[in-house]
Amino acid sequence: MNICIVQMNVIPGKPDLNFETIKKEVKNAVANQSDLVVFPEMCLSGILVGNYFENASFLARCVDFGNQVVALSNSIDILFGNVAVEAGVGDCDRALLYNAAFYASGGALEPLVVCEKVIKCFLPKILLPCSRQFDERYYFSDMQELSYSLNQSLELLLTPYTTKKGIRIGLSIGEDILAAPMSECDLFINISSMPYEMGKQKERHTIFSGHAKRHKIPLIYVNAVGTQNNGKNIYAFEGGSSIYDPCGNLVFEESAFKSCTTTVGYQNKKIKVAKEQHESLSEMAKVRSALVYMIAENLRRFGIERVVIGASGGIDSAVCAALYTEALGADNVFLVSMPTCFNSSTTRQAAKDLATNLGTPYLEAPITESLGVFCKSLALLSFDGNKTPLKVEGINHENLQARTRSTIFLATIASVLNAAFTCNGNKSEVMVGYCTLYGDTSGIFCAIGDLWKTQVYELALEINREKVLIPLASIEVPASAELSELQNVDEGKGDPINYQYHDKLFSFWMERKAQYSLADSIAALVDGTLFEKLGVSELEFRLWFKTNEEAVNDMTYWWNRYKGIGVGKRVQMPPILSVSCRAFGFDLRESQI
Amino acid sequence: MNICIVQMNVIPGKPDLNFETIKKEVKNAVANQSDLVVFPEMCLSGILVGNYFENASFLARCVDFGNQVVALSNSIDILFGNVAVEAGVGDCDRALLYNAAFYASGGALEPLVVCEKVIKCFLPKILLPCSRQFDERYYFSDMQELSYSLNQSLELLLTPYTTKKGIRIGLSIGEDILAAPMSECDLFINISSMPYEMGKQKERHTIFSGHAKRHKIPLIYVNAVGTQNNGKNIYAFEGGSSIYDPCGNLVFEESAFKSCTTTVGYQNKKIKVAKEQHESLSEMAKVRSALVYMIAENLRRFGIERVVIGASGGIDSAVCAALYTEALGADNVFLVSMPTCFNSSTTRQAAKDLATNLGTPYLEAPITESLGVFCKSLALLSFDGNKTPLKVEGINHENLQARTRSTIFLATIASVLNAAFTCNGNKSEVMVGYCTLYGDTSGIFCAIGDLWKTQVYELALEINREKVLIPLASIEVPASAELSELQNVDEGKGDPINYQYHDKLFSFWMERKAQYSLADSIAALVDGTLFEKLGVSELEFRLWFKTNEEAVNDMTYWWNRYKGIGVGKRVQMPPILSVSCRAFGFDLRESQI
Repeated sequence: MNICIVQMNVIPGKPDLNFETIKKEVKNAVANQSDLVVFPEMCLSGILVGNYFENASFLARCVDFGNQVVALSNSIDILFGNVAVEAGVGDCDRALLYNAAFYASGGALEPLVVCEKVIKCFLPKILLPCSRQFDERYYFSDMQELSYSLNQSLELLLTPYTTKKGIRIGLSIGEDILAAPMSECDLFINISSMPYEMGKQKERHTIFSGHAKRHKIPLIYVNAVGTQNNGKNIYAFEGGSSIYDPCGNLVFEESAFKSCTTTVGYQNKKIKVAKEQHESLSEMAKVRSALVYMIAENLRRFGIERVVIGASGGIDSAVCAALYTEALGADNVFLVSMPTCFNSSTTRQAAKDLATNLGTPYLEAPITESLGVFCKSLALLSFDGNKTPLKVEGINHENLQARTRSTIFLATIASVLNAAFTCNGNKSEVMVGYCTLYGDTSGIFCAIGDLWKTQVYELALEINREKVLIPLASIEVPASAELSELQNVDEGKGDPINYQYHDKLFSFWMERKAQYSLADSIAALVDGTLFEKLGVSELEFRLWFKTNEEAVNDMTYWWNRYKGIGVGKRVQMPPILSVSCRAFGFDLRESQI
Repeated sequence: MNICIVQMNVIPGKPDLNFETIKKEVKNAVANQSDLVVFPEMCLSGILVGNYFENASFLARCVDFGNQVVALSNSIDILFGNVAVEAGVGDCDRALLYNAAFYASGGALEPLVVCEKVIKCFLPKILLPCSRQFDERYYFSDMQELSYSLNQSLELLLTPYTTKKGIRIGLSIGEDILAAPMSECDLFINISSMPYEMGKQKERHTIFSGHAKRHKIPLIYVNAVGTQNNGKNIYAFEGGSSIYDPCGNLVFEESAFKSCTTTVGYQNKKIKVAKEQHESLSEMAKVRSALVYMIAENLRRFGIERVVIGASGGIDSAVCAALYTEALGADNVFLVSMPTCFNSSTTRQAAKDLATNLGTPYLEAPITESLGVFCKSLALLSFDGNKTPLKVEGINHENLQARTRSTIFLATIASVLNAAFTCNGNKSEVMVGYCTLYGDTSGIFCAIGDLWKTQVYELALEINREKVLIPLASIEVPASAELSELQNVDEGKGDPINYQYHDKLFSFWMERKAQYSLADSIAALVDGTLFEKLGVSELEFRLWFKTNEEAVNDMTYWWNRYKGIGVGKRVQMPPILSVSCRAFGFDLRESQI
């Protein structure tokens, strides 16, 4: 049997466009004499389509295009994922929806769930993700609920599908690979729609390879590519479709973030792929690909070809500029340096060098005059007959600088150039609101908003691996906002965050499943387990904090910013390109408490 | 039996503070010789606490304070709502959580679910809201799941609780009133945490009164007050706790948005309240109370005492100014008019009159000079050696005006005064992105962002009912942004939205449960059912659109803005004070597609 696996770019909310892709791929597969063609989970609707799943005519279109896929199955079998709609059986007046797999053969759907009480021509997902970015539990029912309502065990409902040629396929969708108790079969096929997540590829290989090995059955994993979003978070669907032999060896792995098609030969639990291929990029190289992919795909979809980036000479804007340049080409990235007297010649030169290295257009636009005129005009005004004129100083002047740069200079230059401008904030700043709302928090995307500052440095090294694009000065100067004399980088002054320590603490608070709280952290500090939990040495910790009291005060300060002003700023921030196990945005439910 | 019902202000995420309230109220109830004191649903944790429900130490605190409430029940019975935690039984390594009712008596919890297989000292909610703002399905299991897992019918599990004095109480939580099949009892008690929603009070009376009448059993409804949020939406919990006699008559109704306690006498299915009270405010009067309540409570919680409001002379900013003045007092609301040559003397005078009517501080800050200096400095710059200088005109200049007003003038004045500034956008603008990002979309809250423009006019009339606060000119001039000659109000020019029609169309698209799409609307127009669906006369419709083609083009334009640029702007907008059946924000799941 020849199986054609299609790692397709699923466009969310566009079943018509996805159907065109499917149709073309089916035609090719038929021409290549494949017996079965496999498409990813939810390849007609997409997964992150917001409330479209509540719209009856959208659902009807998905079903209709699903039927059109079935009609293509006269000379080839087709396995694909789509939303299954059972009208009039759910509560709240809604149809019951399933994230489901469909198997079409001979122009008709095959039954996939068969027991005394029911025959269903689709296989629902068993495990809907129980948290995070996918709102599946909100819209869909699952196999567990079906088994409850039929009063039948999962084991009874989940049997392998036997093809007309007698091959028993153990089908599963996404994370179901672990839950599907289908061991009596000849071949496992898993269809997925999995976004890229740092470190997850290795975990996936372990799970899939272990599954194949345990049952001594080959496994084919077909994942989607493309980008989807839930408004606040943008995800890159990873691809990396893989094939494992019955010994659990990874025989073949598709590239990440690329539409592609491969034909696999199957016979007697033996599996063969013409080309041999494994991708073995470093994690930061994958992060870089994921970010560039999301930037390119999303801007294209929005019809935006150019961006304007405020280049401060610091690491964040430099990394962003390199990523956007890779995605859009140097001619389409416009760097603007907007110095005041607080910007050192070191960073000003670094901004200029960045443009030279990348080959992008560059402009220096001093903002001092505009700031001065505005402050002078405000000083002439008052609410009480000139008794207390409005005087802008200190932190207020710092915020004004940030706002003038972003929402006046960058936004206006971008609109004149018919471009967008970018937000260059990192996850550490986003976490504790160390940024100015309507200032550096503004922009079309927050491209590195899911990378801790220490990870931004790692990404910079990755970007510079073959050729120095990011000026070394940007990597070497202390991280600083340069908004006042107190943040003078040439005097070694900079941000109040000790990224080496705080990044670990912040990750402990927001990335772990257990959602550790301030109280948990203080307790762990007191009982001595915090060092191991954070992965810092006690020796190092004592260089930063002489006493536990100091450490507790510091934790309390940042925790309150995280849960207070941080939330307030995040509510109004741009979408974050998400690459970690937990990004800010929809992925982390937050209230202002 | 004397029953004390406590309509308490539940502070989300603060079980310690809520326990203090409960303790005080229990003490009072004991002093008043009550036999039972009733608190609302989830009165220790709150409901909208984001991912706090994933934090084990937060859950442990809720349970611990729940136990402390139980310990108060030596001389009085206590019925209250809290999260119930069953450790180690759920999937994904998490404890199983329930939104539950607890009944404490004699210092211990009473069993509320009893059948051959199980005894539980709490009653889980049966129906978790299946959509919208409450993320309950994300965190909680429900009675339905419990009944499945025990393989017992709901009817068997749901039996009335019999007090030690032999009174059978039919308990329910929130919407469960309809699902709870407990008819064999002496008294219904429903504990809720329901936010205010326009039009819902009437619906609730119909349901509750019908339920009491059908079963010939009195009903006590205890609701919370206070405000809670999910980051993007702020809700006012309504209160309005009510008592219905066995004939379904509303005997008593607490005020909305106010902590209060009432004692009810119960004997033999007869119910008596000392004071007689019904509130019968108009819907817009309730909207006004809800908005003022949310402003006052939330700003107090954030520690913000003053706001700065850009007063354009138009209706939106005038209504906002009146609401904030009611919430904070006139001295704490600073009105700033920021005219350019495009602002008519009509609206400039209206802005001034507004300040006089409200008695607030007022300032006129022309922005022309700042705009001029900035545009001149930009015109000296270019990316290509002065071949194409950066020239700001047309829509780019309009956006610059809006941004200069909000993020430069208002933000800076606010920071100098240690105040916040406000976003005055309405739901019609928010829907289709008829606003400038980092301009008029900015601010601490979007106070009228859940009111269509036509509703803003209704609210203005309500505010002016007793005394004219909002200048008539603001009500009478055409709605206009006054950003160019094309929007000259004195020449009758204004916004491109025909609010009389579009508000209805927009509501049809986003507020209905069925989530009508563009395709649905076009189909309805063609088959002639659209007029009835929108509630517009065909005659009127034909004044606006001569042909169906014109109407379809118009629909398509606004639909694309709604699903395109509108989503992009909403992602970065401030929290919306929510009063409708469906507010933008978390309440409506959206993707950028």
